[in-house]
Amino acid sequence: MGEKLHPFDDAVALSTVPGAPTTGRTTEAYANMVGPYGGITAATMLRAVLDHPELLGDPISLTVNFAAAIAYGEFTVDARPTRTNRSTQHWLIEISQDGAVTTVATAVTGLRRETWSADELAMPQVPAFDALERTVFPEFIAWAQNYDLRFAEGDLAMTDPQPSEDSTSTLWLQDIPARPIDFPALASMSDAFYPRVFLRLGQMVPAGTVSLTVYFHATTAELAEVGAGPVLGTAQAARFSGGYYDQTARLFSAEGTLLATSNQVVYFKA
Amino acid sequence: MGEKLHPFDDAVALSTVPGAPTTGRTTEAYANMVGPYGGITAATMLRAVLDHPELLGDPISLTVNFAAAIAYGEFTVDARPTRTNRSTQHWLIEISQDGAVTTVATAVTGLRRETWSADELAMPQVPAFDALERTVFPEFIAWAQNYDLRFAEGDLAMTDPQPSEDSTSTLWLQDIPARPIDFPALASMSDAFYPRVFLRLGQMVPAGTVSLTVYFHATTAELAEVGAGPVLGTAQAARFSGGYYDQTARLFSAEGTLLATSNQVVYFKA
Repeated sequence: MGEKLHPFDDAVALSTVPGAPTTGRTTEAYANMVGPYGGITAATMLRAVLDHPELLGDPISLTVNFAAAIAYGEFTVDARPTRTNRSTQHWLIEISQDGAVTTVATAVTGLRRETWSADELAMPQVPAFDALERTVFPEFIAWAQNYDLRFAEGDLAMTDPQPSEDSTSTLWLQDIPARPIDFPALASMSDAFYPRVFLRLGQMVPAGTVSLTVYFHATTAELAEVGAGPVLGTAQAARFSGGYYDQTARLFSAEGTLLATSNQVVYFKA
Repeated sequence: MGEKLHPFDDAVALSTVPGAPTTGRTTEAYANMVGPYGGITAATMLRAVLDHPELLGDPISLTVNFAAAIAYGEFTVDARPTRTNRSTQHWLIEISQDGAVTTVATAVTGLRRETWSADELAMPQVPAFDALERTVFPEFIAWAQNYDLRFAEGDLAMTDPQPSEDSTSTLWLQDIPARPIDFPALASMSDAFYPRVFLRLGQMVPAGTVSLTVYFHATTAELAEVGAGPVLGTAQAARFSGGYYDQTARLFSAEGTLLATSNQVVYFKA
């Protein structure tokens, strides 16, 4: 018998039996209000790509469209390359339950080469991880219990929340228990910012991600440098209108390397 | 016989014959260095969604993965809803040639409702469209001849280009001839920023969009207000590394309404 799996690895684990569809299942640890946390679904779909025998290269981009809530229990994951080039590969990934599609994703993987490089985004200047208090989310938000979240700005106000003119949150994120970061973990953390509309309105309202895109900038060597240490995330919305808003998020290593940029469009009711 | 089609409408036109696959074809007007301009391909895939008899609502998001160059000539466009909910609809769109997939896209359309709204992004302060000179791109960049592009910053330097520390371009964009803006036009304009790597390096290098995502914020009423007038676009890269970089772009009406936000990841060689 091996060691007990980390809850994250348990949540994204896939079961592959030759000749049968690949399956996964939701876990209680990463439950959200309705169905599983979107970040864990994104990570699971990326896991299916990374586990595929024909995989070429590392993740470059991932887009996940949340078509319907996933019911708690088992689901089927179908990942297939739609086109394989010399240095890039394109993927289509679908999750379905009872024959109906719940989630559709596309991904690009590719070989990275040594080239001219530059970083235009400076990491926000914030207090160190150890200098900030952990925000413990309400128990009914199960997935958030798996993250040590330490806000430098835009914290979730648990008592007497007030509307805000700015939807920015900047915070340190770390898995609980700490776990060496990998591409699925980055995908999941890209979605770990509570809905920006809560921050603007000073109240919780129905909200759910419709589509999430993650661009991976980090190399595996850069991820190894981060190890199990915290990463700094910052997220902001641009426009709320007609029942939808967008969110831009960025994840940096503690040393200031931009690991991933992510965007999502969110449905809300207010 | 009707009036002559605008070159843009001609380029995104689809041919639908009952019982046969929907087809489109490239036009010389929107050619790029290798295959058609990515923005026109994105617009064509969105056109296929908007023309579909089962369409629900307006465009919310569009992600286009450029798996392979489209050869000049005819192509097949297959657009199908993967899931239709009460207020949102999810789409998968594929372009193929000779049975091989060249482009895979997903889209979300949805009904917009009157809700609380807010705009957090201020439009950059720049001189008016009429106060700036048009930049005429070299003739071999055919697609760019269809846009009246007036740069406030980050212009393409035609003579004695220098490296730059900042990849930002901010410019007015308008179709030539002027054409009332619609969702396909917004999708196309989202890709109309010349590669950020040219600006940083002060030279043209091989570069191509791998994946493009557009979030549509504008309502049809807001697009009607813009009419055939110019829109203001601004684009910047965050990180160049391993042969890829990302680009964030925003399109505003002249009155400062955020019409669309867009992101793309680009392959480059330098």
